[in-house]
Amino acid sequence: MRKSPTAEIISVGDELLIGHTLDTNSHWIARRLTSFGWTLQRITVLRDSLAALKDGVGGALRRRPDVLITLGGLGPTHDDMTLKGVALALNKRLVLDSEAFAMVKARYSMLEASTGLTRFRRKMATLPEGAKPLPNPVGTAPGVTIKVGKTRLVSLPGVPSEMKAIFQGSVTPMLRSSKTEAPKEVSIGLVGIIESALAPALDRTRKAFPGLYFKSHPRGREGGIRTLIQLHVYSVDPNSHARLDNAIAYLLRELAKSARSRQKDP
Amino acid sequence: MRKSPTAEIISVGDELLIGHTLDTNSHWIARRLTSFGWTLQRITVLRDSLAALKDGVGGALRRRPDVLITLGGLGPTHDDMTLKGVALALNKRLVLDSEAFAMVKARYSMLEASTGLTRFRRKMATLPEGAKPLPNPVGTAPGVTIKVGKTRLVSLPGVPSEMKAIFQGSVTPMLRSSKTEAPKEVSIGLVGIIESALAPALDRTRKAFPGLYFKSHPRGREGGIRTLIQLHVYSVDPNSHARLDNAIAYLLRELAKSARSRQKDP
Repeated sequence: MRKSPTAEIISVGDELLIGHTLDTNSHWIARRLTSFGWTLQRITVLRDSLAALKDGVGGALRRRPDVLITLGGLGPTHDDMTLKGVALALNKRLVLDSEAFAMVKARYSMLEASTGLTRFRRKMATLPEGAKPLPNPVGTAPGVTIKVGKTRLVSLPGVPSEMKAIFQGSVTPMLRSSKTEAPKEVSIGLVGIIESALAPALDRTRKAFPGLYFKSHPRGREGGIRTLIQLHVYSVDPNSHARLDNAIAYLLRELAKSARSRQKDP
Repeated sequence: MRKSPTAEIISVGDELLIGHTLDTNSHWIARRLTSFGWTLQRITVLRDSLAALKDGVGGALRRRPDVLITLGGLGPTHDDMTLKGVALALNKRLVLDSEAFAMVKARYSMLEASTGLTRFRRKMATLPEGAKPLPNPVGTAPGVTIKVGKTRLVSLPGVPSEMKAIFQGSVTPMLRSSKTEAPKEVSIGLVGIIESALAPALDRTRKAFPGLYFKSHPRGREGGIRTLIQLHVYSVDPNSHARLDNAIAYLLRELAKSARSRQKDP
């Protein structure tokens, strides 16, 4: 079975950890990574803290994902410290990048108040040495990318509209260019069964169809008879796609068999 | 300034990383931890994988939070492996816990089909040695808790209704019993200003009011004049609560000053 390329996300911001903001950014990216045939291995949500960033980014790089995406902390204010944290983790200097500075200046020429704020604008164009800016078509802070060993590190802003615009403009082409194929997936709803009654039939099906992934989610309460289980079966390897329907049919036969044998029990 | 107790969350499940399910559980707990005066340091989302669990739980324990909460992976199916992962990380055996088994049996006595599934029910009552079950009033799998050094580890199911019921019944009392106080927070919306124009005034205010936390979120596009910034100011230390209003007044004065000085610029 072909191994799909791997990704990690690091989402940065106190607002995510004090419960102000729900991290919908990671979820949005997770869906896209999956549809491009990538495997998202881990999401880490970190505080606005240099120590947390250094530790979190360093830890992710040691797991050697093909792509590491950081979200948030690229803006002009004091608590935006993602690039400083990345530089620390990479043991690199921060330097003003002329291409990034031109992007920030071009953006501000569209705005009214534009004098006296240079230090805060330079901050958004100050990148870890060797990094490249990614154009931000709907906001000020550019995205940033740098290669670290086998890992392509990408830093995006936390404002959802800006994150999505840079992702679609600059990140999607990177992810698509690697030769991957979307996983195929089949979902069915099973009504009137509890998860522990499904478990033995599911175990047998899993063994009969190696290479397929099975994931069951109980959606109804187990305290009553009416229960709904949502079952997802998917394959990452294109050679296994055709077996998905067979696996579902096999599982349903196994379930019917065990229901009959339970009825025969005293 | 008194240090607030620290927490980490580990949320487990492929469905979170392939983008099927948005992790609202962590957000729900984050809000509660904050309101009880706790500091959530990190959220980690992991795959249904023993290697990922061992590495993730081990890593979190090395950061020595006061509480580590795992979410998901307590059910009867093959991909529910959180307790096995916790046992691996703690280097402990898994043993059938009689109290937990009684809880699971009591639950199933309310259900119809109850024969022939013993192995899968025993699984839900098989805990790392030394752990205690936490009653699940609305589902089958009990929560689990064990003390590891200074860290109280708590494992909860991923089904939101079950997670919330165990949290409110068993976890809230643990968190409240430590002597903490809720942080106080003031939020204001700033209209018609861009974040980099706010930054210098915010920096001065931050320096003038050490011990307070400032967090700004741009809510409008920077590409036009109409921009909204949501600013949150909060204090964890009760002795600083009274200074929040002063800090806001100070910031607004600083903003007015810099607006005047910009108008004077050529």
